Amino acid sequence: MQDQTISTRIKARFPILTWGRAYDRQDLNGDLVAAVIVTIMLIPQSLAYALLAGLPAQVGIYASILPLVAYAIFGTSRALAVGPVAVVSLMTASALAPLGLQSVADYTVAAALLALISGAMLLVMGLLRLGLIANFLSHPVIAGFITASGLLIAASQAKHVLGVSAHGHTLPDILTALWHARGDINLITLMVGAGALGFLFWVRRSMSRVLQSVLGLSASMAGTLTRIAPVLAVVGTTVLAWVLALPDMGVAVVGEVPTGLPSLGLSGLNWSVIPMLLGPAALISIIGYVESVSVAQTLASKRQQRIEPDQELIALGASNIASGLSGGYPVTGGFARSVVNFDAGARTPAAGAFTAVGLLLAAMYLTPLLYFLPKATLAATIIVAVLSLVDLGILKRAWTYSRADFAAVFTTILLTLGAGVELGVAAGVILSLLLFVWKTSRPHVAEVGLVPGSQHFRNILRHKVITDPSFVTLRIDESLYFANARRMEDMILARVHRNKEELKHVVLMCSAVNEIDLSALESLEAINRRLRDLHIQLHLSEVKGPVMDRLSTCHFLDDLTGRVFLSQYDAFNALRNQNEKSAA
Amino acid sequence: MQDQTISTRIKARFPILTWGRAYDRQDLNGDLVAAVIVTIMLIPQSLAYALLAGLPAQVGIYASILPLVAYAIFGTSRALAVGPVAVVSLMTASALAPLGLQSVADYTVAAALLALISGAMLLVMGLLRLGLIANFLSHPVIAGFITASGLLIAASQAKHVLGVSAHGHTLPDILTALWHARGDINLITLMVGAGALGFLFWVRRSMSRVLQSVLGLSASMAGTLTRIAPVLAVVGTTVLAWVLALPDMGVAVVGEVPTGLPSLGLSGLNWSVIPMLLGPAALISIIGYVESVSVAQTLASKRQQRIEPDQELIALGASNIASGLSGGYPVTGGFARSVVNFDAGARTPAAGAFTAVGLLLAAMYLTPLLYFLPKATLAATIIVAVLSLVDLGILKRAWTYSRADFAAVFTTILLTLGAGVELGVAAGVILSLLLFVWKTSRPHVAEVGLVPGSQHFRNILRHKVITDPSFVTLRIDESLYFANARRMEDMILARVHRNKEELKHVVLMCSAVNEIDLSALESLEAINRRLRDLHIQLHLSEVKGPVMDRLSTCHFLDDLTGRVFLSQYDAFNALRNQNEKSAA
Repeated sequence: MQDQTISTRIKARFPILTWGRAYDRQDLNGDLVAAVIVTIMLIPQSLAYALLAGLPAQVGIYASILPLVAYAIFGTSRALAVGPVAVVSLMTASALAPLGLQSVADYTVAAALLALISGAMLLVMGLLRLGLIANFLSHPVIAGFITASGLLIAASQAKHVLGVSAHGHTLPDILTALWHARGDINLITLMVGAGALGFLFWVRRSMSRVLQSVLGLSASMAGTLTRIAPVLAVVGTTVLAWVLALPDMGVAVVGEVPTGLPSLGLSGLNWSVIPMLLGPAALISIIGYVESVSVAQTLASKRQQRIEPDQELIALGASNIASGLSGGYPVTGGFARSVVNFDAGARTPAAGAFTAVGLLLAAMYLTPLLYFLPKATLAATIIVAVLSLVDLGILKRAWTYSRADFAAVFTTILLTLGAGVELGVAAGVILSLLLFVWKTSRPHVAEVGLVPGSQHFRNILRHKVITDPSFVTLRIDESLYFANARRMEDMILARVHRNKEELKHVVLMCSAVNEIDLSALESLEAINRRLRDLHIQLHLSEVKGPVMDRLSTCHFLDDLTGRVFLSQYDAFNALRNQNEKSAA
Repeated sequence: MQDQTISTRIKARFPILTWGRAYDRQDLNGDLVAAVIVTIMLIPQSLAYALLAGLPAQVGIYASILPLVAYAIFGTSRALAVGPVAVVSLMTASALAPLGLQSVADYTVAAALLALISGAMLLVMGLLRLGLIANFLSHPVIAGFITASGLLIAASQAKHVLGVSAHGHTLPDILTALWHARGDINLITLMVGAGALGFLFWVRRSMSRVLQSVLGLSASMAGTLTRIAPVLAVVGTTVLAWVLALPDMGVAVVGEVPTGLPSLGLSGLNWSVIPMLLGPAALISIIGYVESVSVAQTLASKRQQRIEPDQELIALGASNIASGLSGGYPVTGGFARSVVNFDAGARTPAAGAFTAVGLLLAAMYLTPLLYFLPKATLAATIIVAVLSLVDLGILKRAWTYSRADFAAVFTTILLTLGAGVELGVAAGVILSLLLFVWKTSRPHVAEVGLVPGSQHFRNILRHKVITDPSFVTLRIDESLYFANARRMEDMILARVHRNKEELKHVVLMCSAVNEIDLSALESLEAINRRLRDLHIQLHLSEVKGPVMDRLSTCHFLDDLTGRVFLSQYDAFNALRNQNEKSAA
């Protein structure tokens, strides 16, 4: 029995033991095909995201090898592909900028260190089962942050397409820098970049339709070809740059990329930067986790599978540690690569391991071919990818649904664009929490009556209901706690003062009261005392089990002038009978 | 009509116009008697609190004159007496210490400036009707803060009783300083201080009983005499110090106090300290307001009167501005002085104005008599007063009632003692809010069934109820919002998976759902989709009016596979009938 529990626990920690045991030829076929397609797609994407993070291009490839293997061992999603993604690359750039590192080597080591720290944080969160922390990122905050990040990234890549130098971590900074550099635009670079952009936009918008209608391909085949089409832009512009000797005309290319593999371990590490990386690493961990889990959940539900959120923390933690130890930078489960993996038929995480082998070969033998790859092409790849993340429609949807959600989206977008990613997310989360607290501090209180022909009670202002002049029933639509206790006290007493001559009873209907804290208890005691002075009894109805347990620990129920009724209907009948008796 | 509204508004702003018009001889008698008693009590108290704030003794008197007049004009409480109080004096000392001012004149001007800023803040909060902000100070935080402040103040006064020099703003600092100064104890000072302490404790504990039993006085008369007895200690030790020439033996006395009145206005003001005073001023405003309003509310309810919280902000704002302009420091409505005023028969705020006249005379003619007043006596007065504020029982009460409330009290006490008043309150408020959010992020979900013979539904684990195998009803005991949306989704789906073969319907009973935000809406949509894949219908019941209004603005209700029932009983009947029909 004990052994079985341990074996179950080990299997929960190493999902590979479960799917690995049942692995068959069919799985192998599916996984191999998926791996080939994902490898082709990942080469340009990984290079591009590394440049976005301010790192040498090959770092993007390094960050796509061991992390995939680590995720294959620990991950619970069958289709998730981890590696560099746009938003995390942007956050990496924003985290490393304040360090003011001058040499590329230092910057690269700091990026690996960031991945290590973030990996350790994710691991600890997973072991402590703290996946719930991610829930404090509301949907409006995430949507606003992703949209703003997409805009920021697109703007930051514009310099490569224009062939100018322009730095900045906020939209105003980037736009100002671009404006000042407007005289330096390199026309040849612009032509290459604009051509790649045009081609890629066409691919995204129309190629699938053309392949299906003109060539008669199936929708899924056409979709996969569409996803790997960016490789054509890479190959085309690289050949063009080589044949026409574009670098001599001022077109920036990737240049010499070291062949072979990164050295494992962290050589030349400067430990003193760790304190400055802790905050950004925490944010990268949480944002990366939320992005990854959403993708994994979406794909799992399509095949009626389930993922295990806390184990995902461990898997992402292991992936980031693997990335940091192999010269990479922070990684997470990416939407585009996972969807391609899924659509191409990946059946188990082994597909990820095979992709890793493909990228390993690319890192060893392919990098010299990338010498003439124009940076403008990579920038175009990024711009097209991130603009699909931009969804300004969320502003309208949030506005229609609720002003509080709109405020959260709007603030997150504005601050992310105007003050950087860290401040944007932090402000969004804090504002969401404050708005929630503010709303619960101004609760709705409804005076209710009996719906005729039922035992159900509703708001007298919205429904035709039966009431009785000798008592008033107030339904309190919020947990009672310190921020609303005194207000509730005022509201109840103000209602009572409206016809205190007639009233003999006040019933508080507690069906929506999920908690009563110590401050609220004091307010209830005060209400009870004040009503007693007015010779009015205070009753409660529909008090929930957990709340009743709490109230039983103190003297309030002994001092209560009235009763606690199981249901509001019981209260209604009892008080009406009492009133009729006293009248007779 | 328009004129009448304006006149009502003016009357609301100047309550003096209401009570002043009806003022009669009986009011005058009551107010005059109360004023004499309060004046006698206030002289030593005001001096002592000024010393506690680190100010020259006479500043305490100045702060008790014009503020009383301002409150008489604007205040809505009939009995509240404003002036220097212990906690605000401590906070003033703590606010001014970081400025590092060397001269007494600069320090005094800074204290007046603090009163001005705090007054302006209170005024603005009153005009914007922001009295609700005070509700974010929970009862445990206030109780913990007052208790810890009492201990801090008592410890800070110990040096005067021992005749040593020992500074510090946290309990460890003060105790360490006292320990280091243990060799310097002045025995004569200690005898005076201990004598005063003993007398004052006896007064507080036993004098009222002795007066009633031995002299046969009435309880209220005995109570009033007890309150003004500290004057005896002042007079007695002053005479002793004069006759025995105690200052020559190292006993610290008040010394020369300038006769006459402070100059109005702020001469020699250093505006550059303003930014450093904004935070402390905000905290002093809110703490002072909460203290004042609680006292005012307690006294008002004893005479079935009402106070107007937002107008109280304006009145306290005016009092503090008056204090700042007349050489005083931050003031608020004090418990002890207000109770004495009330018990002594004050009938209108005019009693406060008469007290102001009494203190004005004291400031003009009495101060030379205070030359020989030992500081140890004043310290004893403070110690006895503040130790009555200390209520460590709140720790036990909070522990019994709820761990969250206990955490708030404990943290507030610990940090106030260990890190100072500002950090203590701030940590208490933030912790209370975080605990509230944390609790609402882990909501209670109960599976409910019909209570036999009623139309009422309760938890199947707590009550004997009727259920049906074809559907499950889950009562969600919390508003649905971003912090709990995904968890709720997991809980509901986990419950459904337990017997998804049998289940045909899931009903979410929303009687306790007071809000559904955009994140929760997405979760509901996801639940709806997942259940549809399992061929299970999703229904809602008892959705409240405001929540229903919100849901009607989007597509959710159109996509819902099931229905929205007015009451849970309707849902139960409809689904049971449907099940029986499909079985037949």
